Amino acid sequence: MADNLFGQHISKQFDTELEDIRTRVLAMGGLVEQQVADAVSALVGGNRELAETVIERDHEVNALEVAIDEECTQVVARRQPAAGDLRLIMAVIKTITDLERIGDQAEKVARMGLHLAERERPKSQYIEIQHLGARVQQMLHHTLDAFARLDAEAAITVTSEDEKVDAEYDGVMRQMVTFMMEDPRLIKRSLDVMWSARALERIGDHSKNICEYVIYLVKGKDVRHISLEQMKKVARTES
Amino acid sequence: MADNLFGQHISKQFDTELEDIRTRVLAMGGLVEQQVADAVSALVGGNRELAETVIERDHEVNALEVAIDEECTQVVARRQPAAGDLRLIMAVIKTITDLERIGDQAEKVARMGLHLAERERPKSQYIEIQHLGARVQQMLHHTLDAFARLDAEAAITVTSEDEKVDAEYDGVMRQMVTFMMEDPRLIKRSLDVMWSARALERIGDHSKNICEYVIYLVKGKDVRHISLEQMKKVARTES
Repeated sequence: MADNLFGQHISKQFDTELEDIRTRVLAMGGLVEQQVADAVSALVGGNRELAETVIERDHEVNALEVAIDEECTQVVARRQPAAGDLRLIMAVIKTITDLERIGDQAEKVARMGLHLAERERPKSQYIEIQHLGARVQQMLHHTLDAFARLDAEAAITVTSEDEKVDAEYDGVMRQMVTFMMEDPRLIKRSLDVMWSARALERIGDHSKNICEYVIYLVKGKDVRHISLEQMKKVARTES
Repeated sequence: MADNLFGQHISKQFDTELEDIRTRVLAMGGLVEQQVADAVSALVGGNRELAETVIERDHEVNALEVAIDEECTQVVARRQPAAGDLRLIMAVIKTITDLERIGDQAEKVARMGLHLAERERPKSQYIEIQHLGARVQQMLHHTLDAFARLDAEAAITVTSEDEKVDAEYDGVMRQMVTFMMEDPRLIKRSLDVMWSARALERIGDHSKNICEYVIYLVKGKDVRHISLEQMKKVARTES
């Protein structure tokens, strides 16, 4: 599928530019993945220092978004790309917005980690956040894989992982409400856990958005706001 | 300022196309504004029917996003716009993503409205949500005004409104925590109010994003992730 999109331009320079954009998006993705992993591990381990590192590094994510955005606009202006190339650039512009917002959510988790490090630790050691975090990290990783390989089928499979993230999230929320009702002294701590779970759930949503851009990019069809069934139909059609 | 951006193309058809895109973004903005107003009023008034209308109409918002996105891509492919026109289209593509997400938040508030309509109503009649909602609606309205008039100065002023939204949001959150700690029977209701407040606060963030695109569009400078002071400096420079 990737062959339609790359490698057949008159200008070799243009190929290099597109490849460079893609590489930078993947680098941004790698950084964001690291931020999410570090944020979860800082919260779960009560590691204040690591939480602070995540918060500080968020500006690197932001800077990458601005730089890639600028590069995309310049390439459009200079190369006047058509069809597949333009789709690539449009998908990149949207993808980096979601990556930047995943970075924001990682920062939020890290901030909650700082709060929670101040409080007495529960017996569970925040195992529920560890589980949800692991699932979300996996989903994000698969998303970036699908983007790297421009694999629409994989993107659809990842999209369906979001339901599992949501189910796990709902479980955490119910558990926290129970804790709060049983012991009002746990209200503040439980709220911090809820906000962290919420941030992780949002990362699942952003990953799903990116998968939809990958499908759009490969298939040329906008699959936002349609059902998983309809999406599978699109992926099965030839692009 | 608008004169640099519009009205001087060789092709009259191109002017019409750009104007059409702008008009459709404003129509989408109007719909989203209505959704936010209805969602808040449904929650505050315990109006189940209105809440359901908001939830149903969300697909109209989504459909507008997809349609405008498609139109933008086609215009770029066909007209190969440069400089100001390209900036307009890039800003539109980003703006409609945020408008769509404001629509999602309005839907969330409406869903919380449905939950709360099932519960006993507090003496306050959700006055705190009414206040926060009014402030957020005002911010969104000013944002769309700044976009309509391509007014970077106005966009910066609106950006600073976000701090007031955040302060009001923090107040609601503190109040809800107090309620929950005083009377654990109020935990579930207070959580619903918290989620609604959170959704409204997010609308403020999305409005701020749109303001930043307006500044980028008019000034040609990316002002995301910089301080308000730096932003004012950018606005003072000639574009």
